[in-house]
Amino acid sequence: MSRIMDSSPEGRQKKLFTPGPLSCTMAVKQAMLHDYGSRDAEFIDIVKDVRQRLLDIAGASPVEWSIVPLQGSGTYCVEAAIHTAVPRDKDARVLVLSNGAYGRRLAQICAAADLSHDVLEFGEAQPYDLAKVERQLSSRAYACVAAVHCETSCGLLNPVEALASSLRARQPGAAFVVDAMSSFGALPVRLDRVHFLVASANKCVQGVPGFGFVLARTQRLAQCAGNARTLSLDLAAQHDEMERSGQFRFTPPTHALLAAQQALRELEAEGGPAARRRRYEHNASLLVAGARELGLRPLLPADALCPVITAFLYPRHARFAFADFYQRLSALGQVIYPGKITSVECFRIGCIGDLYPNDVKHLLKCIGQVLEDMGVPIPVP
Amino acid sequence: MSRIMDSSPEGRQKKLFTPGPLSCTMAVKQAMLHDYGSRDAEFIDIVKDVRQRLLDIAGASPVEWSIVPLQGSGTYCVEAAIHTAVPRDKDARVLVLSNGAYGRRLAQICAAADLSHDVLEFGEAQPYDLAKVERQLSSRAYACVAAVHCETSCGLLNPVEALASSLRARQPGAAFVVDAMSSFGALPVRLDRVHFLVASANKCVQGVPGFGFVLARTQRLAQCAGNARTLSLDLAAQHDEMERSGQFRFTPPTHALLAAQQALRELEAEGGPAARRRRYEHNASLLVAGARELGLRPLLPADALCPVITAFLYPRHARFAFADFYQRLSALGQVIYPGKITSVECFRIGCIGDLYPNDVKHLLKCIGQVLEDMGVPIPVP
Ligand SMILES: Cc1ncc(COP(=O)(O)O)c(C=O)c1O
Ligand SMILES: Cc1ncc(COP(=O)(O)O)c(C=O)c1O
Repeated sequence: MSRIMDSSPEGRQKKLFTPGPLSCTMAVKQAMLHDYGSRDAEFIDIVKDVRQRLLDIAGASPVEWSIVPLQGSGTYCVEAAIHTAVPRDKDARVLVLSNGAYGRRLAQICAAADLSHDVLEFGEAQPYDLAKVERQLSSRAYACVAAVHCETSCGLLNPVEALASSLRARQPGAAFVVDAMSSFGALPVRLDRVHFLVASANKCVQGVPGFGFVLARTQRLAQCAGNARTLSLDLAAQHDEMERSGQFRFTPPTHALLAAQQALRELEAEGGPAARRRRYEHNASLLVAGARELGLRPLLPADALCPVITAFLYPRHARFAFADFYQRLSALGQVIYPGKITSVECFRIGCIGDLYPNDVKHLLKCIGQVLEDMGVPIPVP
Repeated sequence: MSRIMDSSPEGRQKKLFTPGPLSCTMAVKQAMLHDYGSRDAEFIDIVKDVRQRLLDIAGASPVEWSIVPLQGSGTYCVEAAIHTAVPRDKDARVLVLSNGAYGRRLAQICAAADLSHDVLEFGEAQPYDLAKVERQLSSRAYACVAAVHCETSCGLLNPVEALASSLRARQPGAAFVVDAMSSFGALPVRLDRVHFLVASANKCVQGVPGFGFVLARTQRLAQCAGNARTLSLDLAAQHDEMERSGQFRFTPPTHALLAAQQALRELEAEGGPAARRRRYEHNASLLVAGARELGLRPLLPADALCPVITAFLYPRHARFAFADFYQRLSALGQVIYPGKITSVECFRIGCIGDLYPNDVKHLLKCIGQVLEDMGVPIPVP
């Protein structure tokens, strides 16, 4: 096997096997080579186009749904959705479902705002226990239930649809907030009984970071005016202004919106979310198979793996040190991602972004070489 | 005079005479043609460099001060500064000074979070009445005093230094939050007695929108842990993570940070804030003189004008309609800005960004032609 040389002059473009920021196409980045006035008609048209395309991707009717883009990172949008959904009423209670870092973040959001809340903690990388959820839903009234679709910290896909059915039966009034950050654009979510679906321009949509958005039931959103505890994270006010003037309330990241528009055109050209999903699935199956050959085992059982990101257990060998492994791969132009669960030592490799099977094959080659260089034995087939 | 033709094919770069988003150099935009992993060492170095350069521009000692960048628009950073500065204590009270839209926004931020607050409203475009401020400061204790340096809604520069002296004398314990959004990078603020100075990457620094930052007294900030009411707008937590790992807590707008780094290099190459200020002053004095010749009068008296942005009264003529005026100028590639005060009808023209005297002269030519085309008479000298 030919040796891959460290060829990393400062500033060379590395391949990002990360869940965002991720590898964007050059055309997406080039779309940012333009300054628009945020109140100019041309920019207002771009925002409208982006919102419409996002609705289309979700398969959401413009009669029932609105896209509310919000400046900031994905967490801001999740926080905005919860703050906007929950009435300013001491008795309003939130139920949080958690099986990883992003579930925990939902609980942190509630705690920071002093929202009354209960957390059903299933354990990291453990599937939701739906019977437990049902019992909890029967025990008291909730103003809001919040869950994560793809728990990116371990690569677990949660059964949001089943949850929605339980909710419909037991708490028809509760607002259902779904963090679909890392799945939107590739893995579909059935929208019945969801009220706020939160996502980002910078994951499966393959835009650059700078804003996220909430797919919100318009009628529900209208009932939420005045709920938010901050000016910045007020989805209802943001939506009102968007509908009134087509503008953001505060300076938008104009360049990130241009990038998103181009990214959405590319998503359409690829064949939409279903085609993108197939590419990611292809990437991920090559990755998992190739990694197994190198002695790397996924954290989750095979039937629980998802195409967005895969967590791998650290190889059990004294010479394996993650920081060293990461640095060596980075020097070869391959950026992977640290773990984010606390109970097991693992690292993560994302398969989303402008990545193709050949990129995954090259990454696997690099991993093989790095393990060899580190003196971590690779099992002989 | 030769006629300037409407030559606006879709997507042509217009000149932005706006207070942000504004005209950036092509090199600033080209810096965004790169995807970095937000946890990769190279990106961490870029963030460090940006923070250091911002400290340098402020003339702030790294022993006493920290730059805390925060995802989102400038308003997010102002809101974060107030939420972080004010203890979670029913009795903690904020004093807001207001003479325009951004002063009012400070009050809205307090109201949204149910913070006890008093607003000293001086009237739009009216200077602060320092005697009134002193009386208020003598009447009760404040946890925080918030003011705007350059009130961009009318182009008025507020006497932040004099305010600081009053504060030192009367309320040595109060946190002083200064919104220096549109002045930082060109118009200096003396830092004694300021605790949180809020600014943006996208005004006089001439980067793209996507994040802002707070220049914070490190010791004071350390006392503010746990104050914030949200996860997203918690400056103390953001600072802790920056110091610990060099990373943002949540996905940063990596491309906007690259743009900021390039913008800061250009600011240095121009000769720093003092040189930039001179360019803006030159722009503004040409603008005001030329506009007067066209019959356009500034809202503020000559000695109160500032080089960032100038508000002009609508010409008093039946044929002048702002929407039409704006559209015609935009068609000529010149983007100006609507007014933002409610008591007088005016529009605004910004002089910040990648704009030079020749750009201002060309804008004036365009304005002259548009007024003529609209049939608004121009006074004969
Ligand atoms: C499921 C999920 N939720 C929330 C977030 C937070 O997004 P951000 O880092 O943009 O704040 C992420 C980011 O990876 C995520 O995967
Ligand atoms: C003085 C001042 N404060 C706050 C803001 C708000 O900034 P943003 O629109 O980025 O939220 C602005 C924007 O122009 C400003 O000029």
